[in-house]
Amino acid sequence: MGIILRQADKSDMGSVLELVQELAVFEKETSAVEVTESELVRDGFGKDPRFKVFLAEEEGEILGMAFIYNRYSTWKGRIIHLEDLVVREKHRNRGIGGALYKEVMKYAADQGVKRVCWEVLDWNKVAIDFYLSTGARILDGWQVVHMNEEPLKNYVNQIDESI
Amino acid sequence: MGIILRQADKSDMGSVLELVQELAVFEKETSAVEVTESELVRDGFGKDPRFKVFLAEEEGEILGMAFIYNRYSTWKGRIIHLEDLVVREKHRNRGIGGALYKEVMKYAADQGVKRVCWEVLDWNKVAIDFYLSTGARILDGWQVVHMNEEPLKNYVNQIDESI
Repeated sequence: MGIILRQADKSDMGSVLELVQELAVFEKETSAVEVTESELVRDGFGKDPRFKVFLAEEEGEILGMAFIYNRYSTWKGRIIHLEDLVVREKHRNRGIGGALYKEVMKYAADQGVKRVCWEVLDWNKVAIDFYLSTGARILDGWQVVHMNEEPLKNYVNQIDESI
Repeated sequence: MGIILRQADKSDMGSVLELVQELAVFEKETSAVEVTESELVRDGFGKDPRFKVFLAEEEGEILGMAFIYNRYSTWKGRIIHLEDLVVREKHRNRGIGGALYKEVMKYAADQGVKRVCWEVLDWNKVAIDFYLSTGARILDGWQVVHMNEEPLKNYVNQIDESI
């Protein structure tokens, strides 16, 4: 394919942000992206890197990425979370997503983690069928809960007032 | 209440493991706990600590805990995950869970994170109602996917064979 897989460095964060924005369009949340390139550089390449990114590149162009970070299961131990797996729209169906997925799984196995986990939209049948075909399973009965920045601030302020 | 909240250190990991096991019973997964005390010590107190634990203690006895770690949202930036919030059965309904929850939210707000997230079982109505009352929201349409250690190894071995 002429496609190489490599880990991202600081100078790739602009391309990474473009891929994040493209994924938000696909997931019908176009206005959800608030993170900036400089925040990605700060958070991914400081003293305590918060994530790692695998890129698919062809002739200097970034075509896709897998964005991962460490998590911890109190039942199992060290695990890895796959936050985003995204391929530029015009390069889909070339096997790039699958290649990035394999790269993540190989990395996870090398690290000896107990699990790789991620979240999928329930209407994304193509993705779900692919994941199941690789041995992953969809959990039943668990719901994701978010306390976002604004309600978090409101809640904490209310605590302080009641003391 | 005579209850103090504090951060856990290495010597608390035995109590933390007991609480993890108690939560697994509550969640009807008694055989799911594989992590050991020495793994918790290694992973929480090494050069790259993977988690932080807040404890509720009364007269030297650990009554409950909130187990958290860093995550990263490619839409929002730095976030915190609340992995476990658990109170020993005979000490429930004393406000200890709420106090630990508040401690986590205060810590998260102090850290300036964009979100606190966690997962809840859909039959745990008491917990869900409490979370909603604090401003958190339950996400619609997202499913949790797990690639566990055994299928991960199988999948990766299969990749290597096909090269």
